[in-house]
Amino acid sequence: MPHMFQDFLSQRTYNMRRNQIREILKVVSQPGMISLAGGIPAPETFPIEDLYRINEAVLDRYGAAALQYDLTEGFTPFREALVSYLGAKEINIGADEVLVFNGSQSVLDTLGKVLITPGDIIALETPSYLGAISAFSAYEPSYVSIATDDEGILPQSLEETLDRHRVKFIYLVTTFQNPTGRTLSAGRRQQVAEIVTRRGALVIEDDPYSDLRYRGEAVPAFYTFAPENTVYVSTVSKVFAPGLRLGFCLAPPLIHEWLYTAKQGADLHSNTYAQALAAEYICGGYIYEQVPKIIELYRPRQEAMLAAMEQHIPSDYVWTKPDGGMFIWAEGPEGVDAEQLYWKAVEQKVAFVPGKYFFIDPAEGLPTMRLNFTRADENAIEEAIATLGRVIREFKSV
Amino acid sequence: MPHMFQDFLSQRTYNMRRNQIREILKVVSQPGMISLAGGIPAPETFPIEDLYRINEAVLDRYGAAALQYDLTEGFTPFREALVSYLGAKEINIGADEVLVFNGSQSVLDTLGKVLITPGDIIALETPSYLGAISAFSAYEPSYVSIATDDEGILPQSLEETLDRHRVKFIYLVTTFQNPTGRTLSAGRRQQVAEIVTRRGALVIEDDPYSDLRYRGEAVPAFYTFAPENTVYVSTVSKVFAPGLRLGFCLAPPLIHEWLYTAKQGADLHSNTYAQALAAEYICGGYIYEQVPKIIELYRPRQEAMLAAMEQHIPSDYVWTKPDGGMFIWAEGPEGVDAEQLYWKAVEQKVAFVPGKYFFIDPAEGLPTMRLNFTRADENAIEEAIATLGRVIREFKSV
Repeated sequence: MPHMFQDFLSQRTYNMRRNQIREILKVVSQPGMISLAGGIPAPETFPIEDLYRINEAVLDRYGAAALQYDLTEGFTPFREALVSYLGAKEINIGADEVLVFNGSQSVLDTLGKVLITPGDIIALETPSYLGAISAFSAYEPSYVSIATDDEGILPQSLEETLDRHRVKFIYLVTTFQNPTGRTLSAGRRQQVAEIVTRRGALVIEDDPYSDLRYRGEAVPAFYTFAPENTVYVSTVSKVFAPGLRLGFCLAPPLIHEWLYTAKQGADLHSNTYAQALAAEYICGGYIYEQVPKIIELYRPRQEAMLAAMEQHIPSDYVWTKPDGGMFIWAEGPEGVDAEQLYWKAVEQKVAFVPGKYFFIDPAEGLPTMRLNFTRADENAIEEAIATLGRVIREFKSV
Repeated sequence: MPHMFQDFLSQRTYNMRRNQIREILKVVSQPGMISLAGGIPAPETFPIEDLYRINEAVLDRYGAAALQYDLTEGFTPFREALVSYLGAKEINIGADEVLVFNGSQSVLDTLGKVLITPGDIIALETPSYLGAISAFSAYEPSYVSIATDDEGILPQSLEETLDRHRVKFIYLVTTFQNPTGRTLSAGRRQQVAEIVTRRGALVIEDDPYSDLRYRGEAVPAFYTFAPENTVYVSTVSKVFAPGLRLGFCLAPPLIHEWLYTAKQGADLHSNTYAQALAAEYICGGYIYEQVPKIIELYRPRQEAMLAAMEQHIPSDYVWTKPDGGMFIWAEGPEGVDAEQLYWKAVEQKVAFVPGKYFFIDPAEGLPTMRLNFTRADENAIEEAIATLGRVIREFKSV
């Protein structure tokens, strides 16, 4: 009987959870399934043809430097490219303010490591991004919820939360949120900035989706309203390629310094070659041609989903109509259990994510569901939503 | 006065330390300096020309899959390639036993996360690899030392350490160790395996250098002597390119499972594109042409260093004569402080690493120094060692 090492695990390991969504989504790979469950880019959005050229340019320009150990902070040409990329979003910073990580997931993990002492309280919007919860949970915090409406978190609820709890930080996906697609409105950003600045609170702003805008005017990053109280987190995963695992952040100086030290101990630095590819992708102007193509692919898919929902989803359901991103969030009337709907839909070869997984208290989210529109084409989306509408009506009449 | 957020740092953050070596090595980039201080591959060893072809092959073969989100465990073709690579080292495993990480540093960090509860005791050989200490320290362990000689750790000292302390794991760089260049002999591996198997102890075997063998016969990995009690950690950094940040491990099933879960929360998965490049580098056979070239570059550099030391270093110094790796370890007589020598050598444009930084108790390592021979050519090495010999003699006569 081999040694199992159960008693060798750390206390914090018992706080880690497998991503539960992955468990219920195992059926999604069945043949013929139309999946509205994922949260990943369509492969057609990757600039494969350009990459032949970008690779050559990287090897010609940087040679061995693109393959060598490099700075913990990030590859200098990539950090400089991000200055121009962020400048276009009215985030005006210097290259030395950028820290590069292995995807924004690894920024969130390292923030957890540097900031969270077991038992610390983190404030989350309701519902919230599950990946952040699984990154933070390894450091044994507890969570409190901030109430939200269609414009994002409610300032009143934020004030009450900060009155009642000693909150280490507030975690927000500010634009086209995962899972709801909601955007914190400009007015709200101003109000939230006023509150956190006055109280000396810290916001982690996660902003992976803001470039995927299909209509309406851009809202400046929350960071621009309260730069001294915000860690700004973003990624090139949605505008270049997620497989390169490149995220980055801007942080107040002391937090920046300790993120750097923690990263040095955790992985020395991020992939130099991937950073060189991304630098070339931005500096060579590829990104400014590619993002409009991505938008032109996703926009009609979102329009198809919204139109199909109007036609097929019963009128006692409500859903978000985001100006961008990857998700629509639907909520049925009280009494609906979207996980039961999920299993019925899967029998009909349609998958989505039951929304309860995005709540600290799953009971709050029973009738909700997250619908992704980036992976299936318009016809498949129309068919999937028609099926979902049928499943909902059949389920009701049982 | 902006908010500084001092009171926002986690308890564990106060345990993190900047890499002290980096601080004293800041002078190394001065013009004209010959550095024996680094631990990084020579850029001439990178297969730049091959990479033009490897990139094309990856884009042709995998297309979008090389750029997409992928499995937390690792990109399947890379894991399969590692099966054949490890098979050549008599490590016979299946692809599903391999877990891929962002360099072996990130394996060490994740092992710390999964295994170390604050206060746990970790046993280290003396001296030990500094990067491992900085990865583990974030999880607040304490350390105990195992005594070593030229064949690696002393079985008697290991037994005593395990008698005296409840040791969570024993961390060893088994072949061409950093910093000493020493290899745990086959006989010792057998004895250590017997001890840890009998006691149900856990060894973390870090093996980045074993392919860089310049003479003598390969010693099988410690893992092959005690597979059920060993986490085997390695990397392609020394045989392909460190900038790709690709490490991997094999671990007992329960530890494997929690490493997977921890990695999912920490960064989702490692760079897909880099893994595809490495898969092609191995499967295309490039690695089997490149490693002999790397050896042919490093071997004469090591020979030049050993010959120069024989000629220039005073006879009251002793040093290791490793069969491979990147380092020679020298020790002066009692009373020598190698950091003082360091500053004198730097004035003469030669840098190395004072060895005390590799000891839990720096006082134990005052007269030691680590000399790297992979970054400078034979002439520079000869010149640097001649200078070092002069500095040592001048210093003595003061």
